[in-house]
Amino acid sequence: MTNTAPSGELHAIIMAGGSGTRFWPASRAARPKHFLPLADGTSLLQAAVDRVAPVVGAARTWLITNPVLARSLDSVLPDFPAAQVLVEPEPRDTAPCAALATALVEARHPGAVLAFLPADHVIAPQERFAALLQRAHALAAESGAVVMLGVRPTHPATDYGYIERGAPIDGAQPPAYRVPRFREKPDRATAAEFLRQGTFLWNSGVFLWTTETLLAAMAASHPALHASTRAMLAAAREGDRARLDRAFAGAPKTSIDYAVMEKAPRVVVVEADLAWNDLGSFAALHAVAPPDAHGNVVSLHGGARALLEDARDCTVYGEGPRAVVVFGARDLFVVAVGDAVLVCPKDRADGLKALVRRLPEAGLGDLL
Amino acid sequence: MTNTAPSGELHAIIMAGGSGTRFWPASRAARPKHFLPLADGTSLLQAAVDRVAPVVGAARTWLITNPVLARSLDSVLPDFPAAQVLVEPEPRDTAPCAALATALVEARHPGAVLAFLPADHVIAPQERFAALLQRAHALAAESGAVVMLGVRPTHPATDYGYIERGAPIDGAQPPAYRVPRFREKPDRATAAEFLRQGTFLWNSGVFLWTTETLLAAMAASHPALHASTRAMLAAAREGDRARLDRAFAGAPKTSIDYAVMEKAPRVVVVEADLAWNDLGSFAALHAVAPPDAHGNVVSLHGGARALLEDARDCTVYGEGPRAVVVFGARDLFVVAVGDAVLVCPKDRADGLKALVRRLPEAGLGDLL
Repeated sequence: MTNTAPSGELHAIIMAGGSGTRFWPASRAARPKHFLPLADGTSLLQAAVDRVAPVVGAARTWLITNPVLARSLDSVLPDFPAAQVLVEPEPRDTAPCAALATALVEARHPGAVLAFLPADHVIAPQERFAALLQRAHALAAESGAVVMLGVRPTHPATDYGYIERGAPIDGAQPPAYRVPRFREKPDRATAAEFLRQGTFLWNSGVFLWTTETLLAAMAASHPALHASTRAMLAAAREGDRARLDRAFAGAPKTSIDYAVMEKAPRVVVVEADLAWNDLGSFAALHAVAPPDAHGNVVSLHGGARALLEDARDCTVYGEGPRAVVVFGARDLFVVAVGDAVLVCPKDRADGLKALVRRLPEAGLGDLL
Repeated sequence: MTNTAPSGELHAIIMAGGSGTRFWPASRAARPKHFLPLADGTSLLQAAVDRVAPVVGAARTWLITNPVLARSLDSVLPDFPAAQVLVEPEPRDTAPCAALATALVEARHPGAVLAFLPADHVIAPQERFAALLQRAHALAAESGAVVMLGVRPTHPATDYGYIERGAPIDGAQPPAYRVPRFREKPDRATAAEFLRQGTFLWNSGVFLWTTETLLAAMAASHPALHASTRAMLAAAREGDRARLDRAFAGAPKTSIDYAVMEKAPRVVVVEADLAWNDLGSFAALHAVAPPDAHGNVVSLHGGARALLEDARDCTVYGEGPRAVVVFGARDLFVVAVGDAVLVCPKDRADGLKALVRRLPEAGLGDLL
């Protein structure tokens, strides 16, 4: 296989749905992680849009999100064209969402190559990312494979999915490999072994396909999903939104990784030598606001102030006209945003997602 | 000595000045500890007024406070007569303050017995306190001594002053003793020894005297203070507020304990078997809001809510329409009031007073 020019234009679809549990109380149902001001004051969503623009151009950048977030997009992305915002009628996990976006873009731009990108990840440097996306575009256009970006691991992470890299596709750069298998979040020992072997990459959540590739993969891996996707495509081509929504509502609720990637006959991974972080929790904030000499990470917005005295390895996130004073503490998260304050030792951050789920039964459901 | 009827009427003077450092950020310069809503929603100041009312009556209850707090008294004590609010023109420590109040009340009620009481202590039960105050009143009226209330210690406190009790005054109840000496905040071993000996009492900050007794004690202990106090008395009797304020401004800046009690020739202590707490810090909040089964103390006001999950021995104080969520933490103070949030491990509470003093240099002086 040679690295020829792509046959289809590249379109970027930024997946900007999602709930706000991981960064609660900074993130809320109507204000997910990628809406938050981070570090330089812009949002992760804005950064995601800016990241793909040099490669695909503004006219071929799309968002897919839920109806609630679609209404408040203006607050974080005031210049984004409304016609390029795709709305997922209800949450049905990632497979129906990706199929819906594929149908909607394919109907308007037949034969396009679609790159799906999470809205809420930190990725650097920009130039290297652009080169990776171009390489993935070429592969997706010509190989008939689902193409993924796999990030070279820097530590034995247990909270990421891993992609094993197999035989190289060709000698071109950045390198790309066949994918013999996927491994979901491994235990610590397995993650360490993956790192030692050097043949496992983190699943970045970035993937590319053509409609043809997607349908072929689904036909092999998930016939019901295949049927739903074909119905969505037909409805989209006819511009029948009601029928499209019905087809979406009837699609199996499943993840794209489980339903497609892990079973597709042809999956290719481009090895990405990137600084990448999915900001899965406040623990990852150091990726956007580096720690000071005492290991403290402080992220303040909207007039917030903070004083950390004799504090070490604490992470403070504040928004709004208030001050957070942390004295004598070690390894704490302190988040003060709007009408909620959260205090949690860092080593308990794993439990926050479940805690936030329990807020309604504690009478605090209005804070979600 | 027999327990005869008092010769002078009892007046209560509640000392309601003071700054807001100990309970910051709940307490502020313009809102000291005794203004805060605690437990049942009323303030310590209201409780102090209610505590003396059954003994002295509303018409003989006075407050002495600073000009800033005098202006905001309405917010916590809306029914208190303005004519019974005495204003200290500037902070000059407790001796000039007590002398000023003595001069102002003596001028209007010659021969009165004055009982001085801190505004910001927790005292129970009410009936026992009333009996103690009546006994102290009788002793102050007839003995020519400065009379103090000394609380029977329940633990080896190192943050209280101690009063040694000497020979009993008489056989009456509650028991009263001569005072051979005072001991300021002892170290732990000394405090334990005091507790073992059973002859040391906590200085409750409640003391009584007549003007005659005060002047006699000052003449012996502190001639300069004696002169200032005589000048204040003369000015107050002539109703010359400007001259009174000048005499106050010229009085030595010193504490009543150091300048008078510890040197007065005749000091008597009434032994008080009371539940008493000076609420010196958030650590003492359990005195007004008892801990739950997990040792957590939660005090919420003005619409504040809290969720403590897997938290132990934490103290949460919240005010205003916000929620404080503490997850997985041990032994923490979390205070969220107005425009400030404070997080501090309990074992670092000793450093909070100094921390609050440093807020201005950290650019947070507006939060005091």
